[in-house]
Amino acid sequence: MQTTKTLKELADYLGGTVRGDETLVVNGLAPLESAGADKITFLANPKYAAKVAETGAGAVLMAPGGEAFGRNLIEVATPYLAFAKLLNLFYVHKPAPRGVMEGASIGANLTLGSDVTIHPGAMIGNNVRVGDRCVIHSGAVIYDGASIGDDCLIHANAVVRERCRIGNRCVLQPGAVIGSDGFGYAPDGSGYYPIPQIGIVVLEDDVEIGANSCVDRAALEVTLIRRGTKLDNLVQIAHNCQIGEDCMIVSQVGISGSTKLGNHVTLAGQVGVAGHLTIGDNVMIGAQSGVPNSVPANAGYSGTPIMPHKDWLRAMAVVPRLPELRKTIGALEKRIAELEARLAEK
Amino acid sequence: MQTTKTLKELADYLGGTVRGDETLVVNGLAPLESAGADKITFLANPKYAAKVAETGAGAVLMAPGGEAFGRNLIEVATPYLAFAKLLNLFYVHKPAPRGVMEGASIGANLTLGSDVTIHPGAMIGNNVRVGDRCVIHSGAVIYDGASIGDDCLIHANAVVRERCRIGNRCVLQPGAVIGSDGFGYAPDGSGYYPIPQIGIVVLEDDVEIGANSCVDRAALEVTLIRRGTKLDNLVQIAHNCQIGEDCMIVSQVGISGSTKLGNHVTLAGQVGVAGHLTIGDNVMIGAQSGVPNSVPANAGYSGTPIMPHKDWLRAMAVVPRLPELRKTIGALEKRIAELEARLAEK
Amino acid sequence: MQTTKTLKELADYLGGTVRGDETLVVNGLAPLESAGADKITFLANPKYAAKVAETGAGAVLMAPGGEAFGRNLIEVATPYLAFAKLLNLFYVHKPAPRGVMEGASIGANLTLGSDVTIHPGAMIGNNVRVGDRCVIHSGAVIYDGASIGDDCLIHANAVVRERCRIGNRCVLQPGAVIGSDGFGYAPDGSGYYPIPQIGIVVLEDDVEIGANSCVDRAALEVTLIRRGTKLDNLVQIAHNCQIGEDCMIVSQVGISGSTKLGNHVTLAGQVGVAGHLTIGDNVMIGAQSGVPNSVPANAGYSGTPIMPHKDWLRAMAVVPRLPELRKTIGALEKRIAELEARLAEK
Repeated sequence: MQTTKTLKELADYLGGTVRGDETLVVNGLAPLESAGADKITFLANPKYAAKVAETGAGAVLMAPGGEAFGRNLIEVATPYLAFAKLLNLFYVHKPAPRGVMEGASIGANLTLGSDVTIHPGAMIGNNVRVGDRCVIHSGAVIYDGASIGDDCLIHANAVVRERCRIGNRCVLQPGAVIGSDGFGYAPDGSGYYPIPQIGIVVLEDDVEIGANSCVDRAALEVTLIRRGTKLDNLVQIAHNCQIGEDCMIVSQVGISGSTKLGNHVTLAGQVGVAGHLTIGDNVMIGAQSGVPNSVPANAGYSGTPIMPHKDWLRAMAVVPRLPELRKTIGALEKRIAELEARLAEK
Repeated sequence: MQTTKTLKELADYLGGTVRGDETLVVNGLAPLESAGADKITFLANPKYAAKVAETGAGAVLMAPGGEAFGRNLIEVATPYLAFAKLLNLFYVHKPAPRGVMEGASIGANLTLGSDVTIHPGAMIGNNVRVGDRCVIHSGAVIYDGASIGDDCLIHANAVVRERCRIGNRCVLQPGAVIGSDGFGYAPDGSGYYPIPQIGIVVLEDDVEIGANSCVDRAALEVTLIRRGTKLDNLVQIAHNCQIGEDCMIVSQVGISGSTKLGNHVTLAGQVGVAGHLTIGDNVMIGAQSGVPNSVPANAGYSGTPIMPHKDWLRAMAVVPRLPELRKTIGALEKRIAELEARLAEK
Repeated sequence: MQTTKTLKELADYLGGTVRGDETLVVNGLAPLESAGADKITFLANPKYAAKVAETGAGAVLMAPGGEAFGRNLIEVATPYLAFAKLLNLFYVHKPAPRGVMEGASIGANLTLGSDVTIHPGAMIGNNVRVGDRCVIHSGAVIYDGASIGDDCLIHANAVVRERCRIGNRCVLQPGAVIGSDGFGYAPDGSGYYPIPQIGIVVLEDDVEIGANSCVDRAALEVTLIRRGTKLDNLVQIAHNCQIGEDCMIVSQVGISGSTKLGNHVTLAGQVGVAGHLTIGDNVMIGAQSGVPNSVPANAGYSGTPIMPHKDWLRAMAVVPRLPELRKTIGALEKRIAELEARLAEK
């Protein structure tokens, strides 16, 4: 069931332009080094432009204006994006919907869209909504009153707790937990009294949640993840957070309660963010950094606690030399004392 | 099914005192800023006392002796705790028990308490005990010989491995794992031979375990979490640990094997604790800190490796200035050399 | 059903030598301090050799040539390994295989080995292979086309995604996820377009994956974990990584995409490793360290960013003294200025 396409068809699909033989047929993608004549390859990084001369590929995807070396080209503004789209075209074959399969458990009052697949062992509570073309895998559990939009993919053993709302085209990787109780306790004199977490989680459209990541429900209102934001695996989003649009939250990041992120924020792996902060748009935080304070938009930070990324690089370059610096200071102190003594003698 | 209460009823429930109209009826809680006349609000932080003058709430929960601004008050010693209790009263409605529901899988010799709810797709092994009023959600798996006390809430896809023992009023959030094998291997000359982890995990009463957190079973005896301790999401407790009473272990903390925590210990987010240590009562460790040594009771630490929290704050204030300090030291060295040269000339 | 063995039998099993009464019968293992006459104990650390004089154990496992203090001994080259083997012998009783149990869900075209146990609520897709003597627990989900070797143990709620391949004698702890989609997105001008992750994960033989750990599938080819490597709980392995043989990856470590580890690498808890790096054989990285660059074989590193472990220890010893050093530098500066002034006067 191999997909084959002419360069003309691919160019039309990608909004690009063919330079060379429009009628050439290819059946897949391959790297510059290993592609054969029946494959299209791609040049995403101009650094590797010289490799185009040697590729065995039938055609090359690249940005406009590049050297063709006599190859057939499809010119597109964003070759890496085009590569991703062709991967989908050639290799991702969504199976036909299978409906509610035997062995799935369905509660009362399910509002079910068309063309869904609900696998055996998926567990859906009462008063749930599942949109069109959703796929819910085995072992996923949707609690009472939850709502899932159209074209969502809920992987095995993911959990959506009561009343949480998932937008359209969202993906939950295996083991993701949406709507666990926020970590809130009131001291009662001896121990801790759990504060009921009666709020919910809302994921807007095109949000993706990594494997075994957790998004806690709000204490009273909504923990919100806005359109297009992606969470990697093992991420923790605490209760009452608001995460902006198109953020990239890399693996093992933890964001404490009630913190707000702007749009297009990038948190690299293992970053920790304290609670009740505001992180501006387009902020980038380096891996393993600790963020104790709010930070304004459009800047990069690193370190625990964070400082501007460039300052951090410079400071970290000194750290291995600290023992030597301390020694130097001791030596200087001695030399000064000697100078002082000699001047005092005079 | 809205709950309504007079201020008199609420004050009796909370052990507080009404100042104002005891017969006033409210039907819920709301924040100072947005509460209407049918709601009670609360002043937990005296900093916001002035807002009481402007609230639209029918009544205000506050500590004794505050300014009423002409409002109806319920005075209680701990307004935040009272707020949590009223959240429960007004908004948490435990559904009627549904017994062992169709589609739950039950092994042999189950000892089952009264008024339980075991959801479809919950999987219970042989020789298990489940106490009164427990709720076990879909996809939760209880292995052979495990024991769960009264009034426990086991969320979807949580796992309790063989022979582990859960106390009363414990909560496992979705995906929590109790009793996974400890990470123990003996080098066998070429690779690693797995050391059988034949111990168990014991959670005492009122312990709560966050989503996708893991508590490893002991190699030989017991990994123990004492009464009242709360773990946030994605926490790792290694084999043979003993965690004291009423500890707060925040998200993504990792505690290595055989470490003992006292009572009322707080570990902030992403803290790492080495193995075979003893952490005293009431210790607080700041976020992302690394704890390589045992620490005595009643103190706060931060940093990797930890130091007293105040020392850490002062040290971290210097870090961004290290490049400048290094420059200063170089300049001083030069000036001293010049001074030395001039004195030598004389 | 207690196991009993003579010292002769144990010595033969372990490849060791009895010194003392070969016919003595023991029925289990216990620590030096608490063992009774019917137990064998072990001395793994020569530091505790004096305790052998006082143990109540019937016999002691130790390295050849130690002081017997009149006890029966079994001498073995590696007492800790022997201890692990005896734990297996005395305490681990693999139950008889139960086949595909009622309530397991099996897809089409399952290739099933002999003597397996597939628990109720285990979910197996189409075209799956499961080898001899495998145990698959409740709630584990095996997607279409996955393959699992012989003697594997798949715990509750672990997930193996489509087409991934698991070797022989592998263990997945509860909630482990094999083959989740790698975190790859192409900017599309406004947000992020998900790059299809069409590769797989391969675990070679004797690999163990901790509870709730995640191994992402490759974008195009294979995320590979080689023979004998062990992952602790809550570990993240990103797409396209290649992890060598007999590595120890401790809890909450994160390894970014396309990084390669050699053999016998140890990453301590909460270490973060950047993407596209090469880590040499036998490297050891200290807890919580951040690895931004490739590192050569046979060395130990710590810190964020890493430096040689000894340098890090020395540098960290200075950090708490930074405020004092800064003060000293200020004082020196003043004294030099005074000296300069006095010399200028002359």
